[in-house]
Amino acid sequence: MRKENNDRMGWEENVRKVTPYVPGEQPENKKVIKLNTNECPYPPAPGIRKLAGSIDYSRLRLYPDTEAKRLSEALCGYYHIMPEQLFTGIGSDDVLAMSFLTFFNSGKPVLFPDITYSFYDVWAGLFRIPYQQKKLDEKFRIVKEDYMTENGGIVIPNPNAPTGVLEGVDVLEEIVAANPGSVVIIDEAYVDFGGESCLKLIDRYENLLVVRTFSKSRAMAGLRIGFAMGSPKLIHYLKDAKFSFNSYTMNMLSVELGAEAVRDEKYFQDTIKKIVATRERVKKELLGMGFVFPDSKGNFIFAAHPEVPAKKIFEELKVRGIYVRYWEKPRIDNYLRITVGTDEEMDILINNLRSIMKNKPE
Amino acid sequence: MRKENNDRMGWEENVRKVTPYVPGEQPENKKVIKLNTNECPYPPAPGIRKLAGSIDYSRLRLYPDTEAKRLSEALCGYYHIMPEQLFTGIGSDDVLAMSFLTFFNSGKPVLFPDITYSFYDVWAGLFRIPYQQKKLDEKFRIVKEDYMTENGGIVIPNPNAPTGVLEGVDVLEEIVAANPGSVVIIDEAYVDFGGESCLKLIDRYENLLVVRTFSKSRAMAGLRIGFAMGSPKLIHYLKDAKFSFNSYTMNMLSVELGAEAVRDEKYFQDTIKKIVATRERVKKELLGMGFVFPDSKGNFIFAAHPEVPAKKIFEELKVRGIYVRYWEKPRIDNYLRITVGTDEEMDILINNLRSIMKNKPE
Repeated sequence: MRKENNDRMGWEENVRKVTPYVPGEQPENKKVIKLNTNECPYPPAPGIRKLAGSIDYSRLRLYPDTEAKRLSEALCGYYHIMPEQLFTGIGSDDVLAMSFLTFFNSGKPVLFPDITYSFYDVWAGLFRIPYQQKKLDEKFRIVKEDYMTENGGIVIPNPNAPTGVLEGVDVLEEIVAANPGSVVIIDEAYVDFGGESCLKLIDRYENLLVVRTFSKSRAMAGLRIGFAMGSPKLIHYLKDAKFSFNSYTMNMLSVELGAEAVRDEKYFQDTIKKIVATRERVKKELLGMGFVFPDSKGNFIFAAHPEVPAKKIFEELKVRGIYVRYWEKPRIDNYLRITVGTDEEMDILINNLRSIMKNKPE
Repeated sequence: MRKENNDRMGWEENVRKVTPYVPGEQPENKKVIKLNTNECPYPPAPGIRKLAGSIDYSRLRLYPDTEAKRLSEALCGYYHIMPEQLFTGIGSDDVLAMSFLTFFNSGKPVLFPDITYSFYDVWAGLFRIPYQQKKLDEKFRIVKEDYMTENGGIVIPNPNAPTGVLEGVDVLEEIVAANPGSVVIIDEAYVDFGGESCLKLIDRYENLLVVRTFSKSRAMAGLRIGFAMGSPKLIHYLKDAKFSFNSYTMNMLSVELGAEAVRDEKYFQDTIKKIVATRERVKKELLGMGFVFPDSKGNFIFAAHPEVPAKKIFEELKVRGIYVRYWEKPRIDNYLRITVGTDEEMDILINNLRSIMKNKPE
């Protein structure tokens, strides 16, 4: 923090300086094949358009229900939980940010994997929470003993992102049980694509928070809905902090349209089935081209090629109008995270990868 | 923080304990005359319903634009500012919460009036920011010298809530100019109803942040839109913090429908005119009944009656299905904050007040 010469700059000294999260690009060109932010390639439940047409927009003049009741009812019915076990927010990022602020105040380091969602260390930075990144093993698996040391909290995404690697609920339960003094967050943003959820453990472990999003499997990234499920005590504290930040977070349209998405279970399951089928097919195609990747249970594949640097492939694909995600970070700088799109989009991707491979850029 | 006997409770010690803000009641009974949360009695711009019907809901699968571009363009055009001078959020509460987190980190007390928006001390509590409440004078006016002592930041609502008292821009400019070492927030939630804005000062004072909302004059409390205007440097820091909390706050529908509200300037001005006319008429009626109140420039009147306790009137009105706001707090526990509704609603209110006065409850 350098001291400015100009006295009028004094206020800057007291600004919370941070290194913000950098989201994947949102190109304005709608022709781009967008496989860079793990969005769902299919539209949200068809009932949403119909419902949107029948909403009484004059009611937008009123504040929304602080408890997002209609959405809460739909989620509680679907997941067989009580309203006291549910917390909703502006996407799972909002839920996670609020959880970091609420639960991680011990002064001891919060633990999460070294290769993981790159927002965790940003939240820790924002709230000045000490943290330790625990090294995944060679196969990108967590080492459970790493999470059995003294800590101020634990965050584990399952399946992990950007790797797609799924951990067993038994291992996660061991970690939760070993840490009664810490809140353990299992970030299940991608669990709907083939993972087993830790939800069944929330009645048994008061310190477990399971976080979900509507942005992936429910195809509603644009509406910003996330939620967490946990013990009534945990949720109570989280709500207290949230109501100390903003009373009315979920707007009227997110509440109504989000509830409609939950009600259409068949569409939800059909969408997931299509994405999983495409993912498995693309895995075979990529293997055939010599790519290597951990087996993914998410809606993305984290792939590397032994002969062609990921950065080169990333740049070549971008020139061709195909956006995937690439991080210039230790241990993963030769990987691409490729979102599973529609079958048509994946065919175009594969054809382009073949053509890039043929020219073998270095 | 008591130590729990049960070891499994250990995590609770590290929870951020807070006393949350308590918003005004949102009764589910739609027949209630709701004059308790300063909502607009008229619907939002008519183009909103039409636009909502034409939105491509399949695009909800994609993340929204992180810069809320369409909304930003509309606001920048309307207020003649640059995008670098604008920050948007989930209502002005979100904007204010993020501002407290970003700017008030000096360890010195943040200053705001003793009678004011009751969320300021909640945010200070949430973020462990020391604060001092400066006593308004007998006429509920701020004493400008109070804001010229050492401080870690200043928040002044103008017009003030719940009093409705408007301060002159000249006085506020003196305060801003006297505090180059602090960020000064002028919370203009109600300024559209007859106040002069400090917006014209943002080019001159790098430390001034002007905060606005769509929840009052723009009749969109249900959509959750707020914004702040200030120097590019101030806004840059605020955005950095926001992007360290949640990349995608403004959802697609809020961006589109909010922009539409801004575009319909005539409807906006007509709505304000109607509310102001009703407010002035109600002032006369209340005076005729013996009520006293500071002259309000908001969409509410903060009134007391010398003979009948406010709490009694509040309770009597509630029984009759009319909700106003009452706080059992020092200095204001004999006042009611009455939102200006439609003319019809205010006629019903006045008739009921007359009937209550006749019986003079004690």
